[in-house]
Amino acid sequence: MSEPPILLSLCLQAIVVLFACRVAGWIAERLGQPSVVGMMIAGVLLGPSLLGALWPAEQLWLFPTSTRDVLKFLAELGVGGYLFCVGLDFDLAQVRQRSRLTLAVAAAGVLVPFCMAIPLALATQNIPGWFAGEATLGQQILFLGAALSVTAFPMLVWIVRSKGLADSPMGTVAISAGAIGDAFAWVILAVVLASFTGSPLVVVQCLAGGIVIVAMARYLVPRLLAGLSAECDRRKALTPVAVVAVAALFAAFVALSTWCGMHAVFGGFLCGLALPRGELTRGLRRIEPAIAMWLLPFFFAFSGLQTRLDLLISPSALWLLALVLLVALLGKGGACWVAARWAGLPAAEAAGVASLMNARGLMELILLNVGVQAKLVGPVLFSVLVVMAVVTTLLAGPLFEWTYGRQARKAGGLGRL
Amino acid sequence: MSEPPILLSLCLQAIVVLFACRVAGWIAERLGQPSVVGMMIAGVLLGPSLLGALWPAEQLWLFPTSTRDVLKFLAELGVGGYLFCVGLDFDLAQVRQRSRLTLAVAAAGVLVPFCMAIPLALATQNIPGWFAGEATLGQQILFLGAALSVTAFPMLVWIVRSKGLADSPMGTVAISAGAIGDAFAWVILAVVLASFTGSPLVVVQCLAGGIVIVAMARYLVPRLLAGLSAECDRRKALTPVAVVAVAALFAAFVALSTWCGMHAVFGGFLCGLALPRGELTRGLRRIEPAIAMWLLPFFFAFSGLQTRLDLLISPSALWLLALVLLVALLGKGGACWVAARWAGLPAAEAAGVASLMNARGLMELILLNVGVQAKLVGPVLFSVLVVMAVVTTLLAGPLFEWTYGRQARKAGGLGRL
Repeated sequence: MSEPPILLSLCLQAIVVLFACRVAGWIAERLGQPSVVGMMIAGVLLGPSLLGALWPAEQLWLFPTSTRDVLKFLAELGVGGYLFCVGLDFDLAQVRQRSRLTLAVAAAGVLVPFCMAIPLALATQNIPGWFAGEATLGQQILFLGAALSVTAFPMLVWIVRSKGLADSPMGTVAISAGAIGDAFAWVILAVVLASFTGSPLVVVQCLAGGIVIVAMARYLVPRLLAGLSAECDRRKALTPVAVVAVAALFAAFVALSTWCGMHAVFGGFLCGLALPRGELTRGLRRIEPAIAMWLLPFFFAFSGLQTRLDLLISPSALWLLALVLLVALLGKGGACWVAARWAGLPAAEAAGVASLMNARGLMELILLNVGVQAKLVGPVLFSVLVVMAVVTTLLAGPLFEWTYGRQARKAGGLGRL
Repeated sequence: MSEPPILLSLCLQAIVVLFACRVAGWIAERLGQPSVVGMMIAGVLLGPSLLGALWPAEQLWLFPTSTRDVLKFLAELGVGGYLFCVGLDFDLAQVRQRSRLTLAVAAAGVLVPFCMAIPLALATQNIPGWFAGEATLGQQILFLGAALSVTAFPMLVWIVRSKGLADSPMGTVAISAGAIGDAFAWVILAVVLASFTGSPLVVVQCLAGGIVIVAMARYLVPRLLAGLSAECDRRKALTPVAVVAVAALFAAFVALSTWCGMHAVFGGFLCGLALPRGELTRGLRRIEPAIAMWLLPFFFAFSGLQTRLDLLISPSALWLLALVLLVALLGKGGACWVAARWAGLPAAEAAGVASLMNARGLMELILLNVGVQAKLVGPVLFSVLVVMAVVTTLLAGPLFEWTYGRQARKAGGLGRL
């Protein structure tokens, strides 16, 4: 089959991706899972794991490599834009009120996995296909720590919002602790990659970029947009200048977060968080449905295209999988639960936060993919971590319902399913 | 300078393009031109004509070829999406009421330029650098006819809407006659390219695709979406299924129009036109500002990147330019005025329609670019037609004001500037 022109391919992809995600989201909801889990699986099924395994030529015809750049751009715009909307809605005052709780959960969700990564790396360091030959033990520990501590940040946000918990203390703590933990995991990943590629400049770039982007969000943006936001308030509508300025700011944040080696989602989230509240943020919030329904599916499809579940069919990897799953569940979920209890959250709510924090989702797949591209991660480790990501993600919804949702629903603290 | 990664480049481009278009649009408005003229010029200035001539290395660093695919996609999505919104707003009943007038203007705007292309081609056929060596006289006539008869369809729509004429008979006639004429010019272009590349299958593909797409818009879409549209009416809101279905339909229309060799704008326009009216179209119309402010500037930037005004610095081309300008003004503007008068429109309104129909705008640049890529058009013809496009476009606003706007404003039929 000859390859169609790029625009034609992209249109066909859009039809398939939008429908597949819609149908899969609907099925997931019928099965009591959040719809985002269905979309994530739909993305994987459209990739080499199912469609590509059954009909390789047709899969390559539908997703030719010539469209890869555009698809990646749509994926990053979709997930960055979605996190921008999350930032718009995010109430920093709630986090400040509960900063002890947030910091405890975030720190536990990062430190404990990193500590548990040490014995795990020691026990597995000589397994063939686990890491690439040249990775030192220190690099292995840091990468495993990052892989174990990462959170399905966009998915966590989706679940929290779809359950109407965005304004609850639980939802705010989960989202902010997830953001802090994830940002930390990505910084560590950047350090590992820098030491692996042997260029210390990358570490400096990552840290400097991180400081600049937070300083921009905290000090520059509120001052820069104060006038435009006040103008929107006066007119009770978005002004064209404000809309264009916000788009340019969003692009600047995404550019900075990409430049310093972090994922575009952090730039998008911080940009939304930094905008002065008022008519401007209220008006911008209206773009969320369009982003969630039209752009986000491309993120799931693109991530699915990177995932190869067929690498998993290797029984020797099973005990490794069991070990990693145990470490992942205890090290992240368990640690977050203990920290939330210690900081004073009731048991049921602590378990709800822990089950949300425990999901790895697509962030794990993105992180893994970065590791594979840097030739750091071997095929066995890749497959094991993919299954770990899928299992922890599938567990999030039921665990949340079982530990917190049922009681809260009975008590009227949570809407009906 | 080393090339930044694609996402980073695109973010920088977004910042530059959005600001340049906003500033240029504002300047154009201050000068009494529609803002779209300013944006079109901003796009040209960001391309090889100014930025690339002054700082070639920096221009290539900002717009590296690796981002070309994504930029082209954004451009086509922007202009296709904008025309989709135009289609949503378009009142077919008005056209049916005035079908004689619309058809007269559309036919005159196509047939007269094609007739005038015959002597023009005969007089110029042996000029070096005019057409590529292998073009037959017939191909030259058809290409010149298409180039003379094309209308700045998206720009025409923009002017009509920004002057609040979208629901007026004049606005509707101009838009629908522009659409018919442009579609015809693109079909002719497809025929020329097919005969030039020697594959008659392309002609069949173009005609068959055109018939299928119109049949889909006329018969399939209204039936397919009747249920979803009624559901939206019942709920007084857009349903997720309807939104996803519309996006998939839009992709299908763009895919079909691309496949049959026409520009994506026709698919977008027809898709918007075909949707059943009600809460669905009312809700979808809300995306127009986001498309106009965030996506359309990429269309201007991409078109500007294709344009090389430096080719124009050749005094021998001046008499050709004068000849082509005369033919373009008389053949299109003059013919449309006569046709509109003949069909019963008052003199001032006929002149208003004619001045709008006369603008070539970016459609000419797109068409020219297709001709250059097919190695049909020589550098002299390219430069002459670019200037013709710019001059007819710049004339549209003042001619419209001078022939129709001033009187209409005095009579209260048109809002204040």
